[in-house]
Amino acid sequence: MTKPYNRLDLDQAVVLLVDHQAGLMSLVRDFDPDRFKNNVLAVADLAAYFKLPTILTTSFEDGPNGPIMPELKAKFPDAPFIARPGQINAWDNPDFVAAVKATGRKQLIIAGVVTEVCVAFVALSAIAEGYEVFAVTDASGTFNPVVRDGAWNRMSAAGVQLVNWFAVACELHRDWRRDVEGLATLLGDHIPDYRNLMTSYAALRGAIPQATPGA
Amino acid sequence: MTKPYNRLDLDQAVVLLVDHQAGLMSLVRDFDPDRFKNNVLAVADLAAYFKLPTILTTSFEDGPNGPIMPELKAKFPDAPFIARPGQINAWDNPDFVAAVKATGRKQLIIAGVVTEVCVAFVALSAIAEGYEVFAVTDASGTFNPVVRDGAWNRMSAAGVQLVNWFAVACELHRDWRRDVEGLATLLGDHIPDYRNLMTSYAALRGAIPQATPGA
Amino acid sequence: MTKPYNRLDLDQAVVLLVDHQAGLMSLVRDFDPDRFKNNVLAVADLAAYFKLPTILTTSFEDGPNGPIMPELKAKFPDAPFIARPGQINAWDNPDFVAAVKATGRKQLIIAGVVTEVCVAFVALSAIAEGYEVFAVTDASGTFNPVVRDGAWNRMSAAGVQLVNWFAVACELHRDWRRDVEGLATLLGDHIPDYRNLMTSYAALRGAIPQATPGA
Amino acid sequence: MTKPYNRLDLDQAVVLLVDHQAGLMSLVRDFDPDRFKNNVLAVADLAAYFKLPTILTTSFEDGPNGPIMPELKAKFPDAPFIARPGQINAWDNPDFVAAVKATGRKQLIIAGVVTEVCVAFVALSAIAEGYEVFAVTDASGTFNPVVRDGAWNRMSAAGVQLVNWFAVACELHRDWRRDVEGLATLLGDHIPDYRNLMTSYAALRGAIPQATPGA
Amino acid sequence: MTKPYNRLDLDQAVVLLVDHQAGLMSLVRDFDPDRFKNNVLAVADLAAYFKLPTILTTSFEDGPNGPIMPELKAKFPDAPFIARPGQINAWDNPDFVAAVKATGRKQLIIAGVVTEVCVAFVALSAIAEGYEVFAVTDASGTFNPVVRDGAWNRMSAAGVQLVNWFAVACELHRDWRRDVEGLATLLGDHIPDYRNLMTSYAALRGAIPQATPGA
Amino acid sequence: MTKPYNRLDLDQAVVLLVDHQAGLMSLVRDFDPDRFKNNVLAVADLAAYFKLPTILTTSFEDGPNGPIMPELKAKFPDAPFIARPGQINAWDNPDFVAAVKATGRKQLIIAGVVTEVCVAFVALSAIAEGYEVFAVTDASGTFNPVVRDGAWNRMSAAGVQLVNWFAVACELHRDWRRDVEGLATLLGDHIPDYRNLMTSYAALRGAIPQATPGA
Amino acid sequence: MTKPYNRLDLDQAVVLLVDHQAGLMSLVRDFDPDRFKNNVLAVADLAAYFKLPTILTTSFEDGPNGPIMPELKAKFPDAPFIARPGQINAWDNPDFVAAVKATGRKQLIIAGVVTEVCVAFVALSAIAEGYEVFAVTDASGTFNPVVRDGAWNRMSAAGVQLVNWFAVACELHRDWRRDVEGLATLLGDHIPDYRNLMTSYAALRGAIPQATPGA
Amino acid sequence: MTKPYNRLDLDQAVVLLVDHQAGLMSLVRDFDPDRFKNNVLAVADLAAYFKLPTILTTSFEDGPNGPIMPELKAKFPDAPFIARPGQINAWDNPDFVAAVKATGRKQLIIAGVVTEVCVAFVALSAIAEGYEVFAVTDASGTFNPVVRDGAWNRMSAAGVQLVNWFAVACELHRDWRRDVEGLATLLGDHIPDYRNLMTSYAALRGAIPQATPGA
Repeated sequence: MTKPYNRLDLDQAVVLLVDHQAGLMSLVRDFDPDRFKNNVLAVADLAAYFKLPTILTTSFEDGPNGPIMPELKAKFPDAPFIARPGQINAWDNPDFVAAVKATGRKQLIIAGVVTEVCVAFVALSAIAEGYEVFAVTDASGTFNPVVRDGAWNRMSAAGVQLVNWFAVACELHRDWRRDVEGLATLLGDHIPDYRNLMTSYAALRGAIPQATPGA
Repeated sequence: MTKPYNRLDLDQAVVLLVDHQAGLMSLVRDFDPDRFKNNVLAVADLAAYFKLPTILTTSFEDGPNGPIMPELKAKFPDAPFIARPGQINAWDNPDFVAAVKATGRKQLIIAGVVTEVCVAFVALSAIAEGYEVFAVTDASGTFNPVVRDGAWNRMSAAGVQLVNWFAVACELHRDWRRDVEGLATLLGDHIPDYRNLMTSYAALRGAIPQATPGA
Repeated sequence: MTKPYNRLDLDQAVVLLVDHQAGLMSLVRDFDPDRFKNNVLAVADLAAYFKLPTILTTSFEDGPNGPIMPELKAKFPDAPFIARPGQINAWDNPDFVAAVKATGRKQLIIAGVVTEVCVAFVALSAIAEGYEVFAVTDASGTFNPVVRDGAWNRMSAAGVQLVNWFAVACELHRDWRRDVEGLATLLGDHIPDYRNLMTSYAALRGAIPQATPGA
Repeated sequence: MTKPYNRLDLDQAVVLLVDHQAGLMSLVRDFDPDRFKNNVLAVADLAAYFKLPTILTTSFEDGPNGPIMPELKAKFPDAPFIARPGQINAWDNPDFVAAVKATGRKQLIIAGVVTEVCVAFVALSAIAEGYEVFAVTDASGTFNPVVRDGAWNRMSAAGVQLVNWFAVACELHRDWRRDVEGLATLLGDHIPDYRNLMTSYAALRGAIPQATPGA
Repeated sequence: MTKPYNRLDLDQAVVLLVDHQAGLMSLVRDFDPDRFKNNVLAVADLAAYFKLPTILTTSFEDGPNGPIMPELKAKFPDAPFIARPGQINAWDNPDFVAAVKATGRKQLIIAGVVTEVCVAFVALSAIAEGYEVFAVTDASGTFNPVVRDGAWNRMSAAGVQLVNWFAVACELHRDWRRDVEGLATLLGDHIPDYRNLMTSYAALRGAIPQATPGA
Repeated sequence: MTKPYNRLDLDQAVVLLVDHQAGLMSLVRDFDPDRFKNNVLAVADLAAYFKLPTILTTSFEDGPNGPIMPELKAKFPDAPFIARPGQINAWDNPDFVAAVKATGRKQLIIAGVVTEVCVAFVALSAIAEGYEVFAVTDASGTFNPVVRDGAWNRMSAAGVQLVNWFAVACELHRDWRRDVEGLATLLGDHIPDYRNLMTSYAALRGAIPQATPGA
Repeated sequence: MTKPYNRLDLDQAVVLLVDHQAGLMSLVRDFDPDRFKNNVLAVADLAAYFKLPTILTTSFEDGPNGPIMPELKAKFPDAPFIARPGQINAWDNPDFVAAVKATGRKQLIIAGVVTEVCVAFVALSAIAEGYEVFAVTDASGTFNPVVRDGAWNRMSAAGVQLVNWFAVACELHRDWRRDVEGLATLLGDHIPDYRNLMTSYAALRGAIPQATPGA
Repeated sequence: MTKPYNRLDLDQAVVLLVDHQAGLMSLVRDFDPDRFKNNVLAVADLAAYFKLPTILTTSFEDGPNGPIMPELKAKFPDAPFIARPGQINAWDNPDFVAAVKATGRKQLIIAGVVTEVCVAFVALSAIAEGYEVFAVTDASGTFNPVVRDGAWNRMSAAGVQLVNWFAVACELHRDWRRDVEGLATLLGDHIPDYRNLMTSYAALRGAIPQATPGA
C-alpha cells in the first residue's frame, strides 16, 4: 500500500553523476557553493570508497554549460563518460542507458544539476523501466528552494526515494565493524563537525587524525 | 501504484494562463515581484517558442482585479481570450472548457494567480475529467509561502504534476540539437545567470549574444 | 488512484472552530499574531456570510487554556458551543459528535489551536468515519513551522484536504455574480491588499468602500 | 559624544503620516500586509488617544499612487491634509512645513510609505533644521528588508531616533496610573497577544474586555 | 486507500531512543540546541510519565560519537540499553529487536540522531515487519532542514506517521480528567509559554506552580 | 572619537532584571521560548555565581502583565524587588533608582521585557546620568526581530554596549584559573553544546559531569 | 556631530558602475539574479534619464571575470570606459580618477560587484579625498548577506550614505511635475508592482501604458 | 568625524587566529560548518600567501574546548603559538601581547571563536592601545546570528573595521599584476564559483586549472 523499503545494496547500486559542469554549477542557488561542492565530492568519494560502478555524463561541454568538474573526471578516470551530443534527458541517450544496463544492477543513485531536469528526467524515466531510484538530495542543485521542492514532489510521487549522501553511505556500510577507519575518514573528510569530534577524541587518545589529501 | 511519468509532448500540450491581472498580481507575495514577472513572461515566451496552443482568461477585468498583463495580450493577439463574467473556477465557464477541448489535446500546462484558487480549481477539475495536468509552480503566485505549500499539497495529492517553467521548456525541447540557438536564447532571456554564461562564452569565442528585444 | 476532488458545497459544509482560546492562542508561533487573528476572524466571517452551520468547542476554559476568543462567541451566539469537560480530541466528546451529526452534512471545515492536536485528532477521527475533511491551514496554529509541517503531512497522508480560508470562500461562492458586493466586502475586510485595490478602484469610480464595522 | 536621549513629550510631539495611499501601500513588502495595516492604524489610534496634533499628506492621489487610506481620513477629519501637487519630499512643500511650524512643537513622529523616500527625506530635512525626529519603524514600509536596512542606516547616521509604535505610546504615556483603561485598550486593540492576556485576566476577574468598535 | 489513523495506545506503545549521544548531538543543526535538548527530555519525561516501556541504544559510545546523554541514562536506569558494537541500523542488532519484541507491543515511538539514518533506518525496517511506526519529529535531529525534509519524505511515503512530542503526549493522555496535574506539569516543564499561562493562572487563583526539580 | 572599551568589572557591575513577568513573556517573539527562558535563567545564574548585586522590578503584577517568573524570585529572595505602581520606565520610580544608587556601582547590566521599552528606557535614562550601560541582548525580548533591531539601534547610538550573557560571564570571569569548575558548570547548564563537550571529555577522562539541580 | 544630509543634486552627481562583469555577476548571491539584474539596469536607466555623467570600469575582462554586461556597454556607448589592467581598487587607477575629476562633480553614486571590494574600496578612497559618496545598496552584490552587512557597516562608519536606486531617482527628480511621464516610465520599467498600478489606472482612464522597449 | 579609511598594508598587518579549537568550533552556529571551515582555512591560506606574521593562540586545549584545528598548526609550524593557561581575553596574556609587539606592526587582522568573546575582547583591548583592528567577519563564529549582530555592533562602535576574508585578500593584493596566478589560485581554492569560472575559462583556453593540493 505504501512505498516499500528498498534498502541500498552494495551489489546492486550504481552511481550516476549527471551534468556537474562548471557553467551549470553556477546556476545552483538552493545550496551555498561551499556546501554544494562538498556534497558532490562526498558522493564521488563514497562511490569510490564502496567501489560502486559510476557513470559520468555531461551535456554540451563545449558550450556555455562548461566542462565537467575536474575533480570528478580525475576521480573516475576509467568510468564510462558519456558526453551527450544533445539529449537533455540522459535517459534518451542510448549510450548512457547501455552503460547503466552493462552494470547489471537495479539500484540507481542519481545526483546532478539541475535537479528538476537533469536528475528528475532520468529518475522518472528509469523508474518507469523498473529500476529502484534514489535521488541524492544534497548533491543535486537548482535555481532556488521553491523549484527544488517542486522537483522533489514530482519525483517522490513517482516512487523515487529521496536520500542525502550521508544516508547513502550509512545504508551501504551497514556495520561500522566492516571498516571503522574507512568510514570515519569518509565522514571526517566531508562533515567538519565530525572531523572536530575525531580531532578531540584523537587528542585525548593521543593521535591527530589525518585528512585524506585533497579532501 | 505511484503517479506515472507523463512526459510533456509538443503535440499534446496546451498552455492555460489564468487571471494574470494587474490587480491580482499585486496580491502575490510568495515570489518577489521581479522574479514573478520574469517567470510569467518566460511561460509566455516558451508557449510562443514551442507554438503551443495558448488560452488566456480573466475574471472581472473591469473591477478591482484589473486588466490582464498587457504583455500577455500583446504576445498572443489571436489566442482565445475568455473574459469570464463571474465564474471563479475557469473550468465552470463553458467557453473556457470549449476552448480547451477545441485543441484536441490532453496535457494542460496551467499557470495563474492565485495558486490555490485560479490554478488549483482548474487543475482539480481538469484532472477529474481525465486530463494530464501540469501546474507551473513558479509562474503561479499567491499570498504567502504557507498558502502555496498547502495548495501544492492539495494538487499533488490529486495527481497534478508540479513543474517549473524551466523543466517544462526542457521536457518539451528534449534535444538541444533540435534548435540550439532557440533554446539558448529562451533560457538567456529569462535566467540572468545563464545569460552571463553565454556572454562570457561568446566573448571568448568572439561574439556577444543578443537579447531578444523586449525580453 | 489519487485523492479525488471533493468540492466544497454550500449544502454540505459545516465549520468547526476548535479551541481558539485566549491562553492557547498565545502558544501559536507559526503565524504572526496579527495575521493569525485576522485569519481566524476571516473563517468566522465566511461561515456567517455563507450561513454555514458552525460549531464551537473549547477545552478547560476555566484553567490556563483560557476562555474562547470573545469575537467568536459574539459572532455565533446561537451556535452549538461544547465546552468539553476533559477530552483532548473533540471527537471523543459525544456532544460534539452529536452536534456534527445533527447538521446532516458530510463536509467538515476545521480550524483550531493547536494544529497537530486539536485539528489533526478531529480530522483523523472524522475521516475514519467517512467524512470529507478540509483543514483550514491558515486559521490553525501551533508551536512552530516544523511542527506544522509534520501535522500537515500526517493529515494529508490520511486523506485530509489542506485549504486556506480564501480558497474555502472562493470554492463556496463559485460565481462572483452570486453576490459581488458580499464577496468583495469579505475579501476586503481580511486582505489589506484587496482593500487597497477596492479603494483605488472606487476612487476612480467615485466612491470610497466602507469596511464592515468591527472587521 | 553620542546621540542624546530625547524623550518624547506630550506637549512637544506631532505626528506626520506621509503617503499612506492605497497604491503605494501595495508596494510595501518588508512587512506582511496584515501586520503593516495594523501598525499604521495603531499610530493613528495613539495620535488620537494622546490628542497629538497630526498632519496628513499625500502625493498624486489621483494617479496610480491612489487615495489615502480611508481609515486615516476618517480618523482625522479636521487635521491638516496636504495633498502635494508634485513634491516628492514633503518638506519641499511650503504648506506642509507651515502646518508643522504652526503646531509650535519640536518633536516629529514620522511614519510613511516608502521608508527610504517619503519618511527618510522628510526626516533628514527636518533634522537639518533642528527638529528632534522619531521615525516609526513598523508603520513605515518599503520594497524589501534590504532597502529598509539601508534607509534606517541613513536616518540613524543623521541623528534620527528609530522607534516602533509601541515604544512611542509607552514613552508618551509614562505612567499606567495616568489612564489604565485607556492604554490597555489601545494595546489590546493592536496587539493580539495582549488582548489574549486581557481576555484571560478578565475572565478570571469576571469580565470580558470590549474591543474598541472598528479596531 | 490512504494511510489509516493508527491512534497511539497506552498499552501498545514503546519508546525507542536511538543514539542521543554527546558527540552526535553536536551534529544536529536543524534545531537550535536549547530547543532540541528540551524536546529530547520531553520525550523522556513523557515515556516515564506514561510508564511506557523504553529502550535505549547507542553506537560506538567509546569513539567520537560519545556517550549517551547522561540525563537519559539517569531517567531510565533499568531500561534495556543496547550499546551496539557496530550496526548502524539498530534494527540490524538482534538484541535491540529482541528487546522490542519482548515488550509484546506493536506501536513504536522513535526519536534519534541523526534523523535520516538512526531514525529512518529503524523506522523503515520496523514498518516492513508490520509495526506501526511513529517518528518523533522534534526530538530527532540532523545536519540541516533540507536533509530533514528528505528524511521525512522517505519515511512518510513508507507509511511512518510523523508526530511531535506534544501530539504523542496528548494522544496517549486522551482526557485531561485522567490526571490534570500530571499532564499540566509535563507541559509546563517543557513548554515555557504554557508555564507562563500556569503562573498567571495560579497567581490569580492564589498559588504559584512548582517546576519539577531538574526539568 | 569612538565608544571606549568599558570593561565589565566584578566590583562595579549590578544586574537589573526588568519586567520578566509571565504575561509579558508571552509577548516575546524574537526568540523562541526555549531559548529565551534559558537565556534569562543564565543571566540569573551568572548574577548569583558572580555575587553581583541584583535588582528585580515589575510593572502591574496583578494585572494582565502577570507575576514575575517564579524562578527569578526564588533565586534572589533577598534582592531588592520593586513592584512599580505604574511607572513604565523603571528609572522614573524613585525606589528603583535608589536601589541602584545604594549599590554604589557604575556599571548596569540590564535585561528585560520588552526590549524597546522596559530595557531601552532604563538604559537611555541611566546613560544620561553617567552610568556605563550594558544591555543583555539575548535575555531581552520583544515582538519581532524588526522591533529588536530598531531598539538596538537606538540604544547603541546613545552609547549603550550590546552584550550577550555569555560575553558578560566571560568578561567578568577574565581567567579560567579563577574557578574552572564554576565557570564550566555555568556554561554547561545553559549551553547544551558545551555540556555535550563536557560529557564526552569526562567520559574519556572517566567521569560524567553533573548538571546543577534545577538548571 | 552626526552625518549631515547631503542631498543628491542633478548638477553634482556622477554614476560609477564598477565591475558588473558576466563572470563576477555569477558570484553575487545576496540578491536573487532576477532582482539584481533589474536593479543594475535601473541604475543605468536612471543615469541615462537624468543625463548624469557615467563612468564604466572593469577588471580583467579577458580572464575568468568575464566581459562587462552587454546592456551597460550598449546603454553608454560614449561614456568613459576604463578597462583596468590590474588594479583591484578602481581608485588606484589614474585614468579612472581622472575621468571622475574631469566631470568637475563632487557627488559619487557607486554601484558594483562585489560590494565589499569593488564598491567599498572606491567609496572609502573617494570619501578620504573629500567626495560625497552614495553607495547604491541594491545594485551592488556580493557573496552572501553576512558579507554585505559587514561591507555596509564599514562604509557607513566612514561616512558613506547608503541609498537604493529608487531613493536616488526620487532625490534627483524632486518634483513629479518636472516630468510625470518620464519618472513614471522609469519606475514602471523596473518596479513590477508600480507597473501594475499604472496598468490598472490606465485601464480605468482608458489607456494601457507602454513599457520602454527592452526594459 | 567618521572612522577613517585605514587601508591594510602588507608591511603593517599581522594575523591573529584565536581559539579555533575542535570543541569550540562545534559551538559555531551562525555559519554552516562547510562554509565556516572553508573561511577559516582561507584566512590561513591568505596569511601564508602574503607572508604575514601569524600568531596562534588557544585556551584550555586539554579540556572540553579541545585542540587547535590540526590544519592551522600544520600550516604555521614555526609561528608563535600561545596556549593560554587561563586568560579568556588573549590580550590579558603577556606572551600573546609580546608576540604581537615583537612584529612591530600596527594592523591586527583577527579571526576567532567565539566572536563576542575571543575576537571582540582582543579587538577592544587592542584598539584601546592604539592598534588598527580588522575583525574577519566570516572566519569568526558564534552561537547564532543574533549574538553575532550584537558583537559586530559593539566592535564597530569602538572603531573596529569589519572585513571578510575576501576583502582582506583584495586590499592586501591591490593589483592583479602583482601575481595573477597566485591570487587566482587563492580565490579558486576557497570560492567554488570562482573555481568554476576558472575551469570554464581554462577549458576554452585549453588548460584545466589545478587546485592547490589539500585545499
